[in-house]
Amino acid sequence: MTSKRASAGKASIRRGTNLPRMGDFNESVVLDAIRRDRAGLSRVELAEATGLSAQTVSNITRRLIDQGVAHETGKQSSGSGKPRTLLQVAPGARYAIGVHLDPAVITYVLLDLLGTVVAQRSEPTPRGGDTDTVMAGMAASVSGLVGDSGVDRDRVLGLGIAAPGPIDVTRGLVVDPPELPGWGSVPLRDRLSEETGYAVLLDKDVIAAAVAERWSGAATESRNFLFFYLGTGSGMGLVVDDTVLRGSSGNVGEVGGLGAACSTRALVEEAIELAVLGHEFTPTDPQDAQRSLQHLASLAAGGEPRAGSIIDRWGVRIGRGVSAAATLLDSDTIVFGGPIWTLLADRLLAVIEPMVAQSPFVKQSHPTTVTSTAIGENVAAVGAASLVLDRSLSAQPKSLLLG
Amino acid sequence: MTSKRASAGKASIRRGTNLPRMGDFNESVVLDAIRRDRAGLSRVELAEATGLSAQTVSNITRRLIDQGVAHETGKQSSGSGKPRTLLQVAPGARYAIGVHLDPAVITYVLLDLLGTVVAQRSEPTPRGGDTDTVMAGMAASVSGLVGDSGVDRDRVLGLGIAAPGPIDVTRGLVVDPPELPGWGSVPLRDRLSEETGYAVLLDKDVIAAAVAERWSGAATESRNFLFFYLGTGSGMGLVVDDTVLRGSSGNVGEVGGLGAACSTRALVEEAIELAVLGHEFTPTDPQDAQRSLQHLASLAAGGEPRAGSIIDRWGVRIGRGVSAAATLLDSDTIVFGGPIWTLLADRLLAVIEPMVAQSPFVKQSHPTTVTSTAIGENVAAVGAASLVLDRSLSAQPKSLLLG
Repeated sequence: MTSKRASAGKASIRRGTNLPRMGDFNESVVLDAIRRDRAGLSRVELAEATGLSAQTVSNITRRLIDQGVAHETGKQSSGSGKPRTLLQVAPGARYAIGVHLDPAVITYVLLDLLGTVVAQRSEPTPRGGDTDTVMAGMAASVSGLVGDSGVDRDRVLGLGIAAPGPIDVTRGLVVDPPELPGWGSVPLRDRLSEETGYAVLLDKDVIAAAVAERWSGAATESRNFLFFYLGTGSGMGLVVDDTVLRGSSGNVGEVGGLGAACSTRALVEEAIELAVLGHEFTPTDPQDAQRSLQHLASLAAGGEPRAGSIIDRWGVRIGRGVSAAATLLDSDTIVFGGPIWTLLADRLLAVIEPMVAQSPFVKQSHPTTVTSTAIGENVAAVGAASLVLDRSLSAQPKSLLLG
Repeated sequence: MTSKRASAGKASIRRGTNLPRMGDFNESVVLDAIRRDRAGLSRVELAEATGLSAQTVSNITRRLIDQGVAHETGKQSSGSGKPRTLLQVAPGARYAIGVHLDPAVITYVLLDLLGTVVAQRSEPTPRGGDTDTVMAGMAASVSGLVGDSGVDRDRVLGLGIAAPGPIDVTRGLVVDPPELPGWGSVPLRDRLSEETGYAVLLDKDVIAAAVAERWSGAATESRNFLFFYLGTGSGMGLVVDDTVLRGSSGNVGEVGGLGAACSTRALVEEAIELAVLGHEFTPTDPQDAQRSLQHLASLAAGGEPRAGSIIDRWGVRIGRGVSAAATLLDSDTIVFGGPIWTLLADRLLAVIEPMVAQSPFVKQSHPTTVTSTAIGENVAAVGAASLVLDRSLSAQPKSLLLG
């Protein structure tokens, strides 16, 4: 009989788990529960919510307090029994850095354990220039961000980068980005890790935005939502069955033709072609395109009907795209965000909301909420930092599997 | 301070895990590994593949042998060391029943532990008639299937139903099915459980087909594939990051307008409208529509150009739909199946394969395999039984969480 060793390692075989993994997982479950309830939770409530035994909860909370990530706060008296001590997360115990590499602007944020932005800065994305200089500049910005905040560097868990897709997860870089000339050959993740000394994670901007939304729970508690991101480019972050999807190459959420049709540049070019914007608004770079779009938005807000109808037609395209995706993925919530969304939210919502409500699947199956992110314009940068918090602190069943 | 108990139970708090869950999970991991390697695996190979300790593997394999689901078989000599005993699954240790409720035909299968069909039967779907009679008829078919096979009823783990979507998972029934008049008000899952005495699971046919594909691994070992099912209706089963997606109401995979455009009925009606088929082919029910489509397929196969181009145009619509979905979900494999696919596979593949290869995302990111299911025409019925095997025996990290 010959050996079949090769097949034993094939991807489809699951990994088992063991006691240390179980301990770490249960610790994240408890931390996650405390984090989500800002008023604090008692040990009894934690046991109820997580299904863990009172003894396990007691051991874990002692460890979290020893590590400084949780603390006791006040008492809760509920009816007859003796008052219960409440536990809360210590927001300043750990931090994470987020960097959003947008073709127009690079945004840097520092988040605490509760996902609050404690420091932020943004800079125009350098055009051209050698990549060594650009990387050194980014590292200086990161260092300045942390330094100015007064946060102890040792409390920073790591750095996340959100970049426009498609990305190459293996090599840690952006693939041939049309609006980011030169960046396609920079090993972004590794170089930034070398330059800053932090562990670095890289994800697509739209996936990072979905991670931000799920981590904060600010706009939705849904376990099945799609996040449509409108920035220099467009795409969707997908959460199905309470899990952020990544796909075979980390590029879930590309929207093909719809993405091209929904880019800032395409919209501005359409407005110029229809003579709603003059030729002086022809964009030379992504920052320029954003300024032109802002002008188009202000024309529409001022009542210029042709400017309004360009934006409305854009809304129809987006409405069709999100209705089809929400149908395919059985989503109950659609969240919109990104800098361009912020600019046009009211007008686009007025078009998109009724389209979703009238889509055949929604009418037959279940209502579907359409909403704007509560995180704000910098949701991708917050998402980049959330990648780090999520990886380090979230209770993910997959983390139970032996590496 | 007031109590915030209500929020403690909200859906977003993860459940913890414990030792018994961990034991069950590791047992499924080992069983799954043995099942996937039909030549057998040694205990050393199992430890390598699963990451579990030698002691844990040894304990688990002893339990599996005691339960009769695995047995020792032959020895493997590999170089110097002493020969290792190989373990294999005992295929006849457990069985599962699958029922595919298609508008044209109901298919019943009995699968063993390795997913081999050991018994099968099919009957035309009753049109009209009171639901009590229909349910009793289905129960009799199930009983006949198991009885004739000679399989001990106690070894049957349960019964799975695959039905056209949308389904109502909570109530366990099909929602307003246009091609299954009367079935929308039958509590299918519970009634069939009462009538047969088996535990019953219900899923959409396209999701069941994806589960079958993932369970058997016959056509693909991919962790990111979509299964396009062409039967009386069409839809997609989605596997992303090695997980079968279900969505907020268990209805992942609806394809909206594409589904309507790809139904057997729509295709036949188009052929009649274009006078490729005579009016005598106007379908009165789904069985009729299938016969008409078979005639259209044989015309095309015989070289009738207009029949061929109707099917080719259908292929283009499907090609567009799967390219968009594979782009959105970053799939590396597209599997096709279902009774209509079997009829038209060669012709449709010739249209769809180059469309996928030429889609912008595929060209930019990674090759995407287009293939037919190796399971065959009854993939939805096999999928229905696979739901039971998958639930009972697969190593799913989510099963670790406390209920």
